[in-house]
Amino acid sequence: MTTYRIAVIPGDGIGIPVTEAALVVAAKALPGRLEAVTFPWSCDFYLQTGQMMPQDGIDTLRSFDAICLGAVGWPEKVPDSVSLHGLLLPIRKAFVQYANIRPHRLLPGVEGPLRKGGFDILCIRENTEGEYSGAGGRVHQGTKDEVAVETAVFTRAGVERILRFGFEQARKRSGRLASVTKSNAQKYSMVFWDEVTKELAAEYPDVAISHYHIDAIAARMVMAPESLDVVVASNLFGDILTDLGAAIQGGLGFAASANINPDRSAPSMFEPVHGSAPDIAHLGIANPLAAIWSVAMMLEHLGEVEAAARIMTAMETVTAQGIGTVPGQNKTDEITQAVISALD
Amino acid sequence: MTTYRIAVIPGDGIGIPVTEAALVVAAKALPGRLEAVTFPWSCDFYLQTGQMMPQDGIDTLRSFDAICLGAVGWPEKVPDSVSLHGLLLPIRKAFVQYANIRPHRLLPGVEGPLRKGGFDILCIRENTEGEYSGAGGRVHQGTKDEVAVETAVFTRAGVERILRFGFEQARKRSGRLASVTKSNAQKYSMVFWDEVTKELAAEYPDVAISHYHIDAIAARMVMAPESLDVVVASNLFGDILTDLGAAIQGGLGFAASANINPDRSAPSMFEPVHGSAPDIAHLGIANPLAAIWSVAMMLEHLGEVEAAARIMTAMETVTAQGIGTVPGQNKTDEITQAVISALD
Ligand SMILES: CC(C)[C@H](C(=O)O)[C@@H](O)C(=O)O
Ligand SMILES: CC(C)[C@H](C(=O)O)[C@@H](O)C(=O)O
Repeated sequence: MTTYRIAVIPGDGIGIPVTEAALVVAAKALPGRLEAVTFPWSCDFYLQTGQMMPQDGIDTLRSFDAICLGAVGWPEKVPDSVSLHGLLLPIRKAFVQYANIRPHRLLPGVEGPLRKGGFDILCIRENTEGEYSGAGGRVHQGTKDEVAVETAVFTRAGVERILRFGFEQARKRSGRLASVTKSNAQKYSMVFWDEVTKELAAEYPDVAISHYHIDAIAARMVMAPESLDVVVASNLFGDILTDLGAAIQGGLGFAASANINPDRSAPSMFEPVHGSAPDIAHLGIANPLAAIWSVAMMLEHLGEVEAAARIMTAMETVTAQGIGTVPGQNKTDEITQAVISALD
Repeated sequence: MTTYRIAVIPGDGIGIPVTEAALVVAAKALPGRLEAVTFPWSCDFYLQTGQMMPQDGIDTLRSFDAICLGAVGWPEKVPDSVSLHGLLLPIRKAFVQYANIRPHRLLPGVEGPLRKGGFDILCIRENTEGEYSGAGGRVHQGTKDEVAVETAVFTRAGVERILRFGFEQARKRSGRLASVTKSNAQKYSMVFWDEVTKELAAEYPDVAISHYHIDAIAARMVMAPESLDVVVASNLFGDILTDLGAAIQGGLGFAASANINPDRSAPSMFEPVHGSAPDIAHLGIANPLAAIWSVAMMLEHLGEVEAAARIMTAMETVTAQGIGTVPGQNKTDEITQAVISALD
């Protein structure tokens, strides 16, 4: 039987307990077949070493089958613009994890904020370029004439591969794909995205494509989420839509995410959408379900489809009993134990 | 008694009937004191003349006391990237309408998509620069090596004035201001915005400032909108949040907007948030309430506070009766007549 080497980066705050929970669940679903190596890279690590991860961090991670990440960031200790650019974002880019997949649906027993339920959305977020390229600068810094520029960079290769990934996912599901831009106001980047979409659409005649502006689709996720299925968007737009997706599915405690390298030329990374939540970090009430859902996505990516499905079923059994469905109502441990019991 | 010269640009699609409705209501609230001049600038105008407005369009508008706009765009006739950049966006920029104000609350009788009600949010959107600066380009166009760049440009003057405007509005309301960035991923533009915010906060010690990332506040608008009051955001982020605001207030049919030049060095422009909605343009069912609310904001801006308040009360009387509260249920004319009757 294959065993899998998993690099574990719990990170900061509630990243630590939810990652621990997720790994216990994963180990139970695939006994003896996961070898986890933990790396303490985090804001505390930065305070000690001046770096979010060692110089050879990326090389170290490269040999693993997958990366399991908790959450990164603790603004009171290290500015987010440093911590994220020192750890999370470079991993996504270095390992060409260009497809960030985030599923949004209500787990049984969860009452979301919307009157309507019944949606099942798969967001595909571009994860390596676009608005988070990190290109830009500041001129006349600190003076009244200062100008700051931030350049979104979209490459043909980058746009094409994420759109293809979106078309493929749409094929596997309803055959419907929503592409998100703001081409009425951003006439270079987003018009380009639209053009590539139209070109590729010819290759996927079986996929019905809809074009939305980011403002309109954000409203649609609240007004008529049941009308959406697979959604493909740029780095920033996908970031926003997936927090919205998390909101309509009941909160960030439920939102899972996979940073996928579809070519498998480097490890993929699995992390909940939520952040490190310093305010509740020591209360023991972080919801581990998003992290557990994320390791289920990891097992699926590794080919362990059956184990992944068992975790999902166990989670759904637990939430159907009302455990873990209301923020803060159950302890992290209690929810984790319930999932483990349901796996028996 | 002062009379006001209003430039009216109905634009495209449902922009035409809702603008007509709004002007009838405004005329009723301020009898004999509005002189409206209508300009047919639109996508049809473009098809006839090759321009969205005449060369001297901006100069023509400059002498008016205010501009009342319906909606611009009809993608099947003219690409949005042409129509918007040829009319709406240049007006906002030329007249330094840097503050786009958009109120979000439920009118009586309107059932929004959220289980919870009870919110009252005022979004202040930067309206002249940032992500919609129009700076960018495309290299190796049409080849596999193409790169498209879109540069967000934030100036000290631009950021400072919109933030000051936000602080002032917060002062007039709850004393709470939420500033929106994405400084963890966009380390030039958004870190700059945060710095200016912190600097100005020292001048407004009576205002309590909160910092949110765009993804987090988008989720918050759905999970806990009652926790927000005045929200200040960049051009793109404000654009997205105000469509979300429209969604939680029951839909785009209710969302009003004012493009304000706070220095009054040029006319301000008032327009509903919704677009031209070509699909329902000929059905006579466009909801005029957003446009009517927008002219109420216009009268308020012109100093006609009492007339503005009367329009708001009339609208609320009408929606409390269940008229205009459900999309498509009442005809445009029916809703307009009801508001006019309520003004008596
Ligand atoms: C922490 C932040 C940089 C990150 C992102 O925007 O990518 C997060 O919001 C996410 O959605 O994974
Ligand atoms: C039509 C479009 C360019 C416009 C904008 O994004 O500014 C609209 O969405 C709005 O919100 O006023």
